[in-house]
Amino acid sequence: MIPALTHVQIETIGYIAACCTTLCWLPQAIRTIRTKDTKAISLLTQGVFAVGIALWLLYGIALDSWPVILSNIVTLPLVLIVVAMKLRHG
Amino acid sequence: MIPALTHVQIETIGYIAACCTTLCWLPQAIRTIRTKDTKAISLLTQGVFAVGIALWLLYGIALDSWPVILSNIVTLPLVLIVVAMKLRHG
Repeated sequence: MIPALTHVQIETIGYIAACCTTLCWLPQAIRTIRTKDTKAISLLTQGVFAVGIALWLLYGIALDSWPVILSNIVTLPLVLIVVAMKLRHG
Repeated sequence: MIPALTHVQIETIGYIAACCTTLCWLPQAIRTIRTKDTKAISLLTQGVFAVGIALWLLYGIALDSWPVILSNIVTLPLVLIVVAMKLRHG
């Protein structure tokens, strides 16, 4: 389907994707800490997302996969901040 | 580090993790459509997250990896709904 991509190009896309879906949680965590506003945020979404990230971390540890471990070890505390703020401020 | 887990157990953890981090976006999308409230949500987070999910989808297509394709093809429209509502309602 994407015949022109080399192995290096595909892996580069994977690394950029991992950076995006990991570091993107930093502005949400900062915004939530600053404003204490969590009204529009779904607790179910953030809670299940946090459980999922914890399971991805366990999966990465079990497989000894450092890209999976590193992505999820960065994301987990950021998402837990949002969950904690949501539980505290509603 | 987790010596007792079998291959099947590890893969099961991976599938549960994938379900959590995929389906969790459904309640946020429903909540955002219903309430039109996006004030507490970071546009930067949701926008970069959507770009990351699109890149994961491209990565999955390039590698012909159906677990990666399926997870991200479900997540992408749900996250795009939140981005669109944020752009429209602020």
